[in-house]
Amino acid sequence: MVTTGPGSVPLEILAFDVFGTVVDWHGSIVAEMAAIAPGVDGDAFANAWREGYQPAMARVRSGELGWTRIDDLHRSILDAVLPRFGLGAMPEAERRRLNLVWHRLDPWPEAVAGLHRLKSRFRLCTLSNGNLGLLANMARRAALPWDLILSAEVFRHYKPDPQTYLGVAEVFDVAPSQVMLVAAHKSDLRAAKDCGLATAFVARAAEYGAKVRNDVSPDPAFDLHASGFDDLADQLGC
Amino acid sequence: MVTTGPGSVPLEILAFDVFGTVVDWHGSIVAEMAAIAPGVDGDAFANAWREGYQPAMARVRSGELGWTRIDDLHRSILDAVLPRFGLGAMPEAERRRLNLVWHRLDPWPEAVAGLHRLKSRFRLCTLSNGNLGLLANMARRAALPWDLILSAEVFRHYKPDPQTYLGVAEVFDVAPSQVMLVAAHKSDLRAAKDCGLATAFVARAAEYGAKVRNDVSPDPAFDLHASGFDDLADQLGC
Repeated sequence: MVTTGPGSVPLEILAFDVFGTVVDWHGSIVAEMAAIAPGVDGDAFANAWREGYQPAMARVRSGELGWTRIDDLHRSILDAVLPRFGLGAMPEAERRRLNLVWHRLDPWPEAVAGLHRLKSRFRLCTLSNGNLGLLANMARRAALPWDLILSAEVFRHYKPDPQTYLGVAEVFDVAPSQVMLVAAHKSDLRAAKDCGLATAFVARAAEYGAKVRNDVSPDPAFDLHASGFDDLADQLGC
Repeated sequence: MVTTGPGSVPLEILAFDVFGTVVDWHGSIVAEMAAIAPGVDGDAFANAWREGYQPAMARVRSGELGWTRIDDLHRSILDAVLPRFGLGAMPEAERRRLNLVWHRLDPWPEAVAGLHRLKSRFRLCTLSNGNLGLLANMARRAALPWDLILSAEVFRHYKPDPQTYLGVAEVFDVAPSQVMLVAAHKSDLRAAKDCGLATAFVARAAEYGAKVRNDVSPDPAFDLHASGFDDLADQLGC
């Protein structure tokens, strides 16, 4: 039995961050841009689009903006980014289709097989700032075997608000320590840990592409450090 | 292409009522009672438990009771019903376990195969008053292939409040007429129809057991009338 914390309660639920942890948003957007705008630097474009993400959510978290789905935040960032890459004339229908690339992201190579192994022993859910429709479309296309898709949209709070991490435990009627957040982002894991969740860091060195040096150094603050979901399954005895 | 309504927009999403429509709550509870309390009339017990369901939700819908999950409503009804069947002395741990029988309900015989056929062409979600944890545990155990589990818990409104039906369309970013509610209950379907959803009635004559005559007569108000999910798949060309 995998137990966490001093009370030694069994771990029951693995909650996964999605963008960057389960799916390779950067590589998927680079591939999409290569297909629709071959002259554009897809690497820089992907990172520019993603850079607008945290500031946009911060406006919702602060209350400056009412509840707004990621699909809509992605779209307003996209509209701001396109002209910087010489794509300001992109027609509405193409913008709409490009914006939905976030529904069509490809998983990291070992992710699906790893999730199946982990599912043999734990219940798996998402805990993503992505909206429910986005996550459902992604899971269908990539065959991600979630037991439950949970999103900031359910809790009407974006991570790292505590309502999201504690919300997972409430939904499954378990203690926070019986939930492990699996994420490639240390800030996400720190916030989960502050709420009493167990934590597993997954090293995704290439999350922002080959040109960006991403910090994947082990941090003893987290319960586990894994190179991927196969390694995580090994460590969790699945 | 399956289209609905005068605008002829394609049908995209099938939203399923769950208790009675997908799973046989009555038969599952009868089987559970036969195992744990063989002297009790499981048929009557199951219906007594279920009878408390609508009044309990009505208290939440009216605002008399704050948001309360079905697990907790089921438990308070159970506590009231047990003494009427000579089971008032049931210990806490057993009550807790029995209450979770709603997480362990068996699907109707043709349901899982029918869902797989329907999934080949449509995105499938639940739209149930059951809470998210309950629906996730049920889906895992019975291998129900939902693309997304939606619940009253997401919308903080119980069916038949319009927020639930319209909420499905909003989550998937489609028009209400692109969502079809599949349900064994005419009141549920009428409320969905009032919100502009397409509707499919599924005849589950034995929902309340062999002794209760359940109205499964065709109603021309609904778009489809099906004997089960296999028949529904036939009618929808899956």
